[in-house]
Amino acid sequence: MSKGVTPQSKNFSAWYNDVVKKADLAEHGPVKGTMVIKPYGFALWDNIKEALDGMIKESGHTNAYFPIFIPKSFFAQEAKHVKGFAKECAIVTHTRLKTVDGDLIVDPESKLEEEVIVRPTSETLVWAMYKKWIQSYRDLPLLINQWANVVRWEMRTRLFLRTTEFLWQEGHTAHATAQEAEDETVLILEIYRRLAEEILAIPVLTGRKTEIEKFAGAEHTYAIEAMMRDKKALQSGTSHNLGQNFAKAFNVTFQNKDNQEEMVYATSWGVSTRIIGAVIMAHGDDKGLRLPPKVAPFQVVVIPIYRNAKQKKIIEKYLNPILTILKNSSVRTNVDWREESPGFKFNDWEMKGVPIRMEIGPRDIENNQVVLVRRDTGNKTIVQTDDIVEKVLQMLNDIHDNLFAEALDFMKSNIIKTDSYDEFKKIIKDGGFIRCGWDGTSETELKIKEETGATARIIPFDENAKNLKCIYTGKPAKHEIIFAKAY
Amino acid sequence: MSKGVTPQSKNFSAWYNDVVKKADLAEHGPVKGTMVIKPYGFALWDNIKEALDGMIKESGHTNAYFPIFIPKSFFAQEAKHVKGFAKECAIVTHTRLKTVDGDLIVDPESKLEEEVIVRPTSETLVWAMYKKWIQSYRDLPLLINQWANVVRWEMRTRLFLRTTEFLWQEGHTAHATAQEAEDETVLILEIYRRLAEEILAIPVLTGRKTEIEKFAGAEHTYAIEAMMRDKKALQSGTSHNLGQNFAKAFNVTFQNKDNQEEMVYATSWGVSTRIIGAVIMAHGDDKGLRLPPKVAPFQVVVIPIYRNAKQKKIIEKYLNPILTILKNSSVRTNVDWREESPGFKFNDWEMKGVPIRMEIGPRDIENNQVVLVRRDTGNKTIVQTDDIVEKVLQMLNDIHDNLFAEALDFMKSNIIKTDSYDEFKKIIKDGGFIRCGWDGTSETELKIKEETGATARIIPFDENAKNLKCIYTGKPAKHEIIFAKAY
Repeated sequence: MSKGVTPQSKNFSAWYNDVVKKADLAEHGPVKGTMVIKPYGFALWDNIKEALDGMIKESGHTNAYFPIFIPKSFFAQEAKHVKGFAKECAIVTHTRLKTVDGDLIVDPESKLEEEVIVRPTSETLVWAMYKKWIQSYRDLPLLINQWANVVRWEMRTRLFLRTTEFLWQEGHTAHATAQEAEDETVLILEIYRRLAEEILAIPVLTGRKTEIEKFAGAEHTYAIEAMMRDKKALQSGTSHNLGQNFAKAFNVTFQNKDNQEEMVYATSWGVSTRIIGAVIMAHGDDKGLRLPPKVAPFQVVVIPIYRNAKQKKIIEKYLNPILTILKNSSVRTNVDWREESPGFKFNDWEMKGVPIRMEIGPRDIENNQVVLVRRDTGNKTIVQTDDIVEKVLQMLNDIHDNLFAEALDFMKSNIIKTDSYDEFKKIIKDGGFIRCGWDGTSETELKIKEETGATARIIPFDENAKNLKCIYTGKPAKHEIIFAKAY
Repeated sequence: MSKGVTPQSKNFSAWYNDVVKKADLAEHGPVKGTMVIKPYGFALWDNIKEALDGMIKESGHTNAYFPIFIPKSFFAQEAKHVKGFAKECAIVTHTRLKTVDGDLIVDPESKLEEEVIVRPTSETLVWAMYKKWIQSYRDLPLLINQWANVVRWEMRTRLFLRTTEFLWQEGHTAHATAQEAEDETVLILEIYRRLAEEILAIPVLTGRKTEIEKFAGAEHTYAIEAMMRDKKALQSGTSHNLGQNFAKAFNVTFQNKDNQEEMVYATSWGVSTRIIGAVIMAHGDDKGLRLPPKVAPFQVVVIPIYRNAKQKKIIEKYLNPILTILKNSSVRTNVDWREESPGFKFNDWEMKGVPIRMEIGPRDIENNQVVLVRRDTGNKTIVQTDDIVEKVLQMLNDIHDNLFAEALDFMKSNIIKTDSYDEFKKIIKDGGFIRCGWDGTSETELKIKEETGATARIIPFDENAKNLKCIYTGKPAKHEIIFAKAY
């Protein structure tokens, strides 16, 4: 069960698959590309969700729920949008099964007059509703979020990173002015940055997507990009300024304070179960997961060490008050009483990435102490029983900070500035992010992608194109940009 | 916006539709039978969900997520189950759209080899996975719950009560013995009873469903049944003992402690957004909703009463510390600063069922007091500012107790025991539950349904069939049973 995984250095992709499986996070469902999120993986998602939901609500948004089914005709309203999603839709065409000669078949008489799309994202449905809800400036801004499942019929799938169905939150807001929509887009990106850095201990780059990489139907898209330990990029959250594109498509206007009709401005933004892939690949090592303490399903796992029933009883009794004070301090704690060897349990919980292991045996009880072992560093500390809560809370903070610092060092030392296309190609091959000049054309971007496999990740907010030349054409750079291979 | 609703006495069904709309809970989506749950309705659902999720976790269950798509062949595995759901499935047959002559059409080349069913419930998918997860008695019991959307393509739909897509939790457990599965089924029903009575203030009857009314694929089904204010029944939660039916269908066995292969026992159980219909119809009156305090999105709404900007400022300043202490006491409070008359606001928040209205005007400030008005009784109380938190918390408890007591009185006085079929017919016509003898045959049950429109709700756990005769056939009763018209 908790045997080793393929080393990262040997085959990162195999390492990832091994960890997802052996840490009991998820597995494939029977329909191609679908995913079963197992209890341990789901507890992780639930904690991420709770943290993000809190930030979304704090900033004035409310949750709602829109239907999973979108009429095909709605879907067709925004031309670029439908183009972006038409090739990967689940389409419902019938509504009854019947048994013929012992076979269960689709009843041809149950064919729908208009086919129905399982939402790949909800802009079209939301804006069809917003048309009813928005009449006056008093109805704006409208700040709604939903937690939902969406479906994109992908050909090549990987657990968490790309699945036919995934879970996410999608925010959809409506505003009276272009500036307000832009402010919202930026506000949300900052929430996503805080989620990544302050909750998940994953440093991210923030910036704007190119025309090619932006959301289908957006004016522009902002994103957070993280570096995985194989030096590839993972886009971990996106915030789109939709301008008036969807308002136009669904004819959503409002009466302003001067009694004039105006078109509404929109944003949308999302973070999905994909971010679990980032948690795995930004922090994990050859022993398995290393979970950021703020979202780890268990922050402390207790391994009682005993030889016989009498010792077990003594430990149980000794542990009870410790567990109570940990619970009262909101430390998520699990005691592993399974009938397995301590060594087996050590490996198993290392694989599952629990931040702190607490070992407790007869000798520890004699000395009124426990042993704490950090998952991130492997360091052992002997702690007096009275100090447990204080030490555990401190250690959880330290682990967060250390995971973040490690990942930040790693990212910083693997973002290379260059103006040589030869060096660019070499680095992309070996792994790393390139920060360089770009002439701002889609043509150049596509050629680089074709020749190197690297995609434009973002134009960073702190770009400085002055004196830079385009890495590919040598023309004066319009932007400084990050290129990398990406998930 | 908050104009009156159709009186309950005039047309209960119209009253229901009016309240759902005017309280801003939900509306129909564009695809027939789908529902948009608006922010106020969703906040109510979120609170119900949080309460139930806590009880489910406390009793040892963990959450997970199973895919929305089920292969048609899986769905066919359990004969009764498929029969129960075959006529109301959403079936995905294609995965691409394309534009031909300007029209967006389903690409015939994207036809799936095997059609995929959008889950109407997840037993078949869950048990296909459990087959992989269960090998030994050490893997049991397996106690998993999921919060998800499901789809049943209903012909006649009503918001919350019957929608094509709805939200719910579905628990799926696996056990080593029949007794453990039965204990689980009973345990969950008790959780559902507590949700209804202790959280939602809705008294319920508990008991067993007849063969006709049980879940498709279950050995037997337990349910909680509530009485709405039109004296019709609403099934508000069900807990199914599935015996070995699904284990057999998916060949799920385990090795017991004596190294013998045995078939696994199963349960499943669910509560859905339908229960919001029960909250509306068990408590609502001609002014709108009356929400149970424990799940009300806002427990207190503050209506500031002022004539000019100066008075408004004074109230704002006075209110600030009050809002802080209410927040610190976890009282969900909303201040209505809209530019509308107090009368408009009173009506609007009565429609939305907020348990307590707090009025505060210049004279109240002079007297260092506020006015509290209970939504359930309309009673006004003047409260000194220092006592606000204490009084509000007490009042919220009182409102819960009063709503429960009112609904219990109403239910008790409308459950009629009779042994006369003529009286039975009269009561069913006028409204009410009948408690009577039944010979235990499906034939009798169906005839009663045909002749009166009443269905067998439950065989109550406290039944006493001794000396009873069947209400229809006059034969010795096998069971005491509850009949009623139902949603």
